[in-house]
Amino acid sequence: MSKQAIGVVGLAVMGRNLALNIESRGHAVSVFNRSREKTDELIAEFPDRKLVPSYTLEEFVESLEKPRRILLMVKAGEGTDATINQLKPLLEKGDILIDGGNTHFTDTIRRNQDLAKSGLHFIGTGVSGGEEGALKGPSIMPGGQKDAYDLVAPILTEIAAKAPDGEPCVAYMGPDGAGHYVKMVHNGIEYGDMQLIAESYAVLKQVLGLSNEELGKVYTEWNQGELDSYLIEITSKIFGKKDEESGKDLVDVILDRAAQKGTGKWTSQNALDLGAPLPLITEAVFARVLSSLKTQRVAASKVLAGPDAKPFSGDREAFIESVRRALYLSKVISYAQGFAQLRAASDEYKWDLQYGTIAKIFRAGCIIRARFLQKITDAYAKDPQIDNLLLDPYFRDIAANYQAALRDVVIQAVALGVPVPAFSSAIAYFDAYRSERLPANLVQAQRDFFGAHTFERIDKPGSFHAEWA
Amino acid sequence: MSKQAIGVVGLAVMGRNLALNIESRGHAVSVFNRSREKTDELIAEFPDRKLVPSYTLEEFVESLEKPRRILLMVKAGEGTDATINQLKPLLEKGDILIDGGNTHFTDTIRRNQDLAKSGLHFIGTGVSGGEEGALKGPSIMPGGQKDAYDLVAPILTEIAAKAPDGEPCVAYMGPDGAGHYVKMVHNGIEYGDMQLIAESYAVLKQVLGLSNEELGKVYTEWNQGELDSYLIEITSKIFGKKDEESGKDLVDVILDRAAQKGTGKWTSQNALDLGAPLPLITEAVFARVLSSLKTQRVAASKVLAGPDAKPFSGDREAFIESVRRALYLSKVISYAQGFAQLRAASDEYKWDLQYGTIAKIFRAGCIIRARFLQKITDAYAKDPQIDNLLLDPYFRDIAANYQAALRDVVIQAVALGVPVPAFSSAIAYFDAYRSERLPANLVQAQRDFFGAHTFERIDKPGSFHAEWA
Repeated sequence: MSKQAIGVVGLAVMGRNLALNIESRGHAVSVFNRSREKTDELIAEFPDRKLVPSYTLEEFVESLEKPRRILLMVKAGEGTDATINQLKPLLEKGDILIDGGNTHFTDTIRRNQDLAKSGLHFIGTGVSGGEEGALKGPSIMPGGQKDAYDLVAPILTEIAAKAPDGEPCVAYMGPDGAGHYVKMVHNGIEYGDMQLIAESYAVLKQVLGLSNEELGKVYTEWNQGELDSYLIEITSKIFGKKDEESGKDLVDVILDRAAQKGTGKWTSQNALDLGAPLPLITEAVFARVLSSLKTQRVAASKVLAGPDAKPFSGDREAFIESVRRALYLSKVISYAQGFAQLRAASDEYKWDLQYGTIAKIFRAGCIIRARFLQKITDAYAKDPQIDNLLLDPYFRDIAANYQAALRDVVIQAVALGVPVPAFSSAIAYFDAYRSERLPANLVQAQRDFFGAHTFERIDKPGSFHAEWA
Repeated sequence: MSKQAIGVVGLAVMGRNLALNIESRGHAVSVFNRSREKTDELIAEFPDRKLVPSYTLEEFVESLEKPRRILLMVKAGEGTDATINQLKPLLEKGDILIDGGNTHFTDTIRRNQDLAKSGLHFIGTGVSGGEEGALKGPSIMPGGQKDAYDLVAPILTEIAAKAPDGEPCVAYMGPDGAGHYVKMVHNGIEYGDMQLIAESYAVLKQVLGLSNEELGKVYTEWNQGELDSYLIEITSKIFGKKDEESGKDLVDVILDRAAQKGTGKWTSQNALDLGAPLPLITEAVFARVLSSLKTQRVAASKVLAGPDAKPFSGDREAFIESVRRALYLSKVISYAQGFAQLRAASDEYKWDLQYGTIAKIFRAGCIIRARFLQKITDAYAKDPQIDNLLLDPYFRDIAANYQAALRDVVIQAVALGVPVPAFSSAIAYFDAYRSERLPANLVQAQRDFFGAHTFERIDKPGSFHAEWA
């Protein structure tokens, strides 16, 4: 009986779509699911595809070529540990487990190290692109033992999305948790992008009173330029979608309460651990949380009055262009923060992340795919160790040329009472980052005053304490 | 030989000052330190005080009345576990360990539960007020078994700070980790207060060009009114302090790089876990982190130009008053977020926190002591389950009357390139919280578009999915 080069455990939508993707590249794929119904459903739905079902893990493991390549697409967390524990006694030295779930990178580090003791390889792999990406070509971020990655690279390369220049959106990220870490930051960046777009929408709607039809046109036009990206594209389409039931625009029927699944939160929590400033994405996470307090907000809207401000009376077309520039510069600032965090993580966890490569594999397949990612790749090609993307000439010029627009949008929004936490955070970060001197000297003085925490001086090294009282 | 009612383990500055504080109320105190030098130093420095040294833990434990009351003032983390493990075999059922360190509340929950299995009580206690507070009267936030708290309450009450109305600043916070949790949020609030004051300083200095002498007068004046607080008081004094070495104002000689010890970070990380919006304090934590990137900032200041804006030309006195109002309203918003997080934590961890009592014990002894805390106590007295302090009539009126000032300060700062992350975050939160409708409907639509995450509707309950493409 011939054996398969790869098998998939876990046949929920992401697992089955990845299995179908692999099969579509000419590989027979072993498939297993804890409950046999999902396996049977898959086989019944695709009777002509080379999907080889197993109904026990023993049978599944037996069906694979050695070294075995097993893609785990199970519920992250305890589900992953349970599956690993069941598989472990059935595997042999050199076999490779690939975890394609949304796993916290610290779990991946732990599992990689634990399994290495038994001679097993563990490739923690970020997979982005949702259901459709999994089926047709996701962006793939694998991390773990490099020699094990080399053994799965051919298949991962085949199934990955292809960038506009034809390059596959997969690359070795680094040891142990590096792949899941990059995926986590990808998701954090996605939170930031979505919040920034939401704020641009709020400003265009509340300051200028644009209709959904006008909004659709604005985003369609924006998608032709620097902002060209998947998220802007779907935003432009969302405004054209009708609700079949009510006949209204669907976007107006949707409740303004956004859910979250935790990867944005993880990114912010890790930024705090690393001491890497990530205020914009964190504001985006908190904005989702605040949106979920719908009942409180409705009650508060009746108690807390807004500003007593005059409606916008400037040039409307010029203001739309200002919002576009504000969005683009804020996006640049958000990515500058995200990539600076990748660098801090690479230093902390000894990963040797390749930032330009990371931007490259984000260019297709994943949710944040965008034309502008090429600019990030270019920046790191010029200076692989640049401290912050804002210092790159291209981004520096964007900041120079677009900051007036971002300031104007924040000023208009604050004056009129439109909440723009991410836009505001973007300009505050920009102004702080370019400040030779911040008021933190006062904070140092306060800490020394009340807690004898000491302070540093501008004129000589060392720690000093003053008798303040 | 007579025995002591309480003993202190760990004689670094906080431990020795608490021991001296207890002794000053008429109690003999057993003292122990891992290295005997610190014990000998303390005894030598205060030969006439009733401090009873022990040089082994056995001797120390023997020297205490039963049930034993042992205040641990050791390095939080492994130091605490090591000390507990050494003490445990020497203790008897009913003995009480009081951890006065800056312990993460999850460690306190774990230790409380572990020790309870051996019949030992564990009181995790926040202590705020720095060295001087420890010596003369700190604010004390104990959590753990209520019956064990009752046995240590008399001494804690004696040594606690006294509020202006004479009430001692100590109260039972709740079970297991409640005390250390409240202390953590206290520290997070302290981060927010300090950053807000730093931003007011930056605005007054950079927008109006106030001298240190003028700044000192401004803060002295502010300290007479609504902003009356310890942090404003020391700020006013800081501007008058000369550097003995250079003769310059000391504040100008201090490096603008603020350190942090982690409790602010913990507060933000826990807010993210709870899904409690805490953007202002989190911006304050990130502002400290960004301040620490001094070398990068100096380099960036030469590459990234600021706005091309005209200097301030309005009424200077009126603008100073606007900054005062901006500071006060932002502080109100920060506390509204912090107290909403306390409520979320109380629900999550089943603590039944008493918010009005917490504000009460913050009124003296601790770093954030301030006149305005009485307003929080009053608000909870009126409505113990109020969702958000901004809904209380007093704070609602502050928001109504001061929001124009806060908006104006943010607008001026953003226009002139002065970073005000916490002020900006305050107004964004205020505007979002009072928004009946936020643009999160778009985020919901996007998530359903790319990931079939479903959305909710405004007109009926349930989860829905649309075919967007």
